Amino acid sequence: MEKVTMDKIVNVCKQYGFVFPGSEIYDGFANTWDFGPVGVELKNNVKKAWWKRFVQEDKDTYGVDAAILMNPRTWEASGHVQSFSDPKMDCRKCKQRFRADNLIEDFSKGKVAAEGMSNEEMEKYINENHIKCPKCGSFDWTEVKQFKLMFETSRGTVEGDKDIVYLRPETCQGEYVNFLNVQRTARAKIPFAIAQIGKSFRNEITPGNFLFRTIEFEQMELQKFCKDSESMDIYNEYKERAINFVIDMGLDKDKLRFHDHDKLAHYAKAACDIEYKFPIGWSELNGIHHRGTWDLTRHSEFSGKKLEYLDPETNEKFIPTVIEYSIGADRLTLALLCEAYAEETLEDDTTREVMRFIPALAPYKVNVLPLIKKNHGEKALEIYNMLSKHFMASYDETGNIGKRYRRGDVIGTPFAITIDDETLENDTVTVRDRDTMKQETIKVDEIVAYINEKITF
Amino acid sequence: MEKVTMDKIVNVCKQYGFVFPGSEIYDGFANTWDFGPVGVELKNNVKKAWWKRFVQEDKDTYGVDAAILMNPRTWEASGHVQSFSDPKMDCRKCKQRFRADNLIEDFSKGKVAAEGMSNEEMEKYINENHIKCPKCGSFDWTEVKQFKLMFETSRGTVEGDKDIVYLRPETCQGEYVNFLNVQRTARAKIPFAIAQIGKSFRNEITPGNFLFRTIEFEQMELQKFCKDSESMDIYNEYKERAINFVIDMGLDKDKLRFHDHDKLAHYAKAACDIEYKFPIGWSELNGIHHRGTWDLTRHSEFSGKKLEYLDPETNEKFIPTVIEYSIGADRLTLALLCEAYAEETLEDDTTREVMRFIPALAPYKVNVLPLIKKNHGEKALEIYNMLSKHFMASYDETGNIGKRYRRGDVIGTPFAITIDDETLENDTVTVRDRDTMKQETIKVDEIVAYINEKITF
Repeated sequence: MEKVTMDKIVNVCKQYGFVFPGSEIYDGFANTWDFGPVGVELKNNVKKAWWKRFVQEDKDTYGVDAAILMNPRTWEASGHVQSFSDPKMDCRKCKQRFRADNLIEDFSKGKVAAEGMSNEEMEKYINENHIKCPKCGSFDWTEVKQFKLMFETSRGTVEGDKDIVYLRPETCQGEYVNFLNVQRTARAKIPFAIAQIGKSFRNEITPGNFLFRTIEFEQMELQKFCKDSESMDIYNEYKERAINFVIDMGLDKDKLRFHDHDKLAHYAKAACDIEYKFPIGWSELNGIHHRGTWDLTRHSEFSGKKLEYLDPETNEKFIPTVIEYSIGADRLTLALLCEAYAEETLEDDTTREVMRFIPALAPYKVNVLPLIKKNHGEKALEIYNMLSKHFMASYDETGNIGKRYRRGDVIGTPFAITIDDETLENDTVTVRDRDTMKQETIKVDEIVAYINEKITF
Repeated sequence: MEKVTMDKIVNVCKQYGFVFPGSEIYDGFANTWDFGPVGVELKNNVKKAWWKRFVQEDKDTYGVDAAILMNPRTWEASGHVQSFSDPKMDCRKCKQRFRADNLIEDFSKGKVAAEGMSNEEMEKYINENHIKCPKCGSFDWTEVKQFKLMFETSRGTVEGDKDIVYLRPETCQGEYVNFLNVQRTARAKIPFAIAQIGKSFRNEITPGNFLFRTIEFEQMELQKFCKDSESMDIYNEYKERAINFVIDMGLDKDKLRFHDHDKLAHYAKAACDIEYKFPIGWSELNGIHHRGTWDLTRHSEFSGKKLEYLDPETNEKFIPTVIEYSIGADRLTLALLCEAYAEETLEDDTTREVMRFIPALAPYKVNVLPLIKKNHGEKALEIYNMLSKHFMASYDETGNIGKRYRRGDVIGTPFAITIDDETLENDTVTVRDRDTMKQETIKVDEIVAYINEKITF
């Protein structure tokens, strides 16, 4: 099998209805992407699986869904207003904007880490090495300036007031500001977590690599509040749970690795990423971060509300330590698409494209196929209607059966059911398995249980 | 029973973890709201039920999840850039901004419809009637100006370029721009629909009434593409399906009515709302609109791409007519909270608060209660762990059983299971019903099936 490239995945996604370029009829927009009919089901299944594992099945985790638009003071407390920015340079010739750190890292092939450099140091390196504009080849740079990564908008509901509002660049602040509300209403005892799935926005200068880095993205994350003495155990527990989750979702163990951070924020005891071997190379899939008491302390200071926990046993009041576990829904969906896609040569030397999603993630669980439309169409529709009450089913009556199997394979449908004369006579159908391509006969009234058993996550 | 006011609902929501004021520790923000631990489950269940009914169970409907940030040309084609605004006036004294049309309608107690008035006509009416600032009582108005309802932000990735980007004020444009992509990849035949659930943003001058009107809200809507000759039948079909849906969700028939529009857009053949009797009075819950060929025609013009359908039978090419069905997820959630909440006086003259959600919508399906923590806690946790693999369950070991029942009642948990000595001896539990408060004994290994049967939507 050939190596699957990112371009190949982008094309497959577009061709079969997983992901389309955003606003495509207007020639797209800023690397935004729209999930199509099968993509939206896949991504929703990813989100459901995460929520099930980390919220539903965890007695001590409580969900929230906070507003995207938050009081701007939130972003002062979090530090984003002051320092959430990238160093940018403009090419005076072609007007294109670039990240100075990326220019240096690309030029040095990763040997020079620009991360710790000041603006002046970056300028100096670029000038001394005569790094040219990657777009037009000129060497005519403006100075390095910081480019804010938060999108700004404004309310303007009071005359003359600019009233800046930010699109949240991360969801976790929605948990921190609700710490007291959740603790009180859920009568939660430490250690407990608040979890959220929602959109965030970052005005990246150069987004790219398909769903990997986009200006608009969806996070699935939780913040676990605990005593400092138990924080490292919980950190290690979530490392374990996080990697088990993505393995259970179908990612290959050998394409996953931990990357422990060397440099830590001053308040943190530990931080690590889980990396996945994407077609573009090893890249961050999710992070587990020890955040100390930083976030709740800052919000206490900025809001004047004490975000403390009263230990009911010791009667001690303290600001809990936070362990953060965060994973991008779009990025994980991309990893799953890369992992699942295969072009196979079959025994008869024909090839097929297939998405080997675990059944729980497959957009459609079953493809309902009348062998001959005019003879079996009515019965097939009846079966489709019965099945679609239980899970996503598709119905396909056009073309020969082999072709219809292939159409289900490439969108990852794990089961295909053929309705033929046997069905009309004995109430049995043939079930064909996407992966083994083997068929078996089962009773119509057994289909729901047969499939339900296999699609449970 | 007393009449339930909106204030009461707001307080109940805050007290029991349904909905908190957004950014509350910073004294809130612009009428944004955060869904708490039970609120997020309720709203997710509302969205799931809608998607099941209108996408999963409908062979001819395909989902999408389009980006919130779209190419700005989208909003030129849709007309929003030119004319999506409210008439505003500022009080020169207190600087507060108001909608001129609202000032007139409030002053005239709804007798004067300001909707069709020009800016000058509104100014004249306000001056002649000496309408004062509702905030400070002054009569010192600026002139009427149009206030844009789309939030604007900017990319700024090319030097000097302002690069305006809008937060989408409605989700449906994500379906229109993807009409060809969805039709092609799903090989869809007319009539078919594209459906979406997602957030929209409107910079309302005066949002209000809790979740009823907010600057950030979530829409559930679909656009059905059809031949013009069948469009009125489809319009009437969706009126029917829309009202049946909200009745099945638990809204009282007698608190629902159709409101057919008198004034229609020039391209439309019909439009109606479904109104619900909120505590604030009859107000729009959802809309069904005949949109003619307006949207696809405009996007064809602005994009230069022909958004046409090729009829495989007649070989005729045409721009399909659109029927839109749209409902606000937050607004429906609010209606369900208003409908479900009750304060009851029981036989023993005590009162209880209860949320009578249909079981499919209840945040937690079952409340697991060990009668005595030290004797039955371990077994109860075992049962909780078993149940939470199947649906949201809560676990409560504190306080007497009656108190714990009440805590489940007010968040709408339909079933409570008590684990006692009988459980240890015979593997049976007592199941108590939220509404009848009756109890019955069932086997532990029957609980999942017992509850699953009742929570299906």
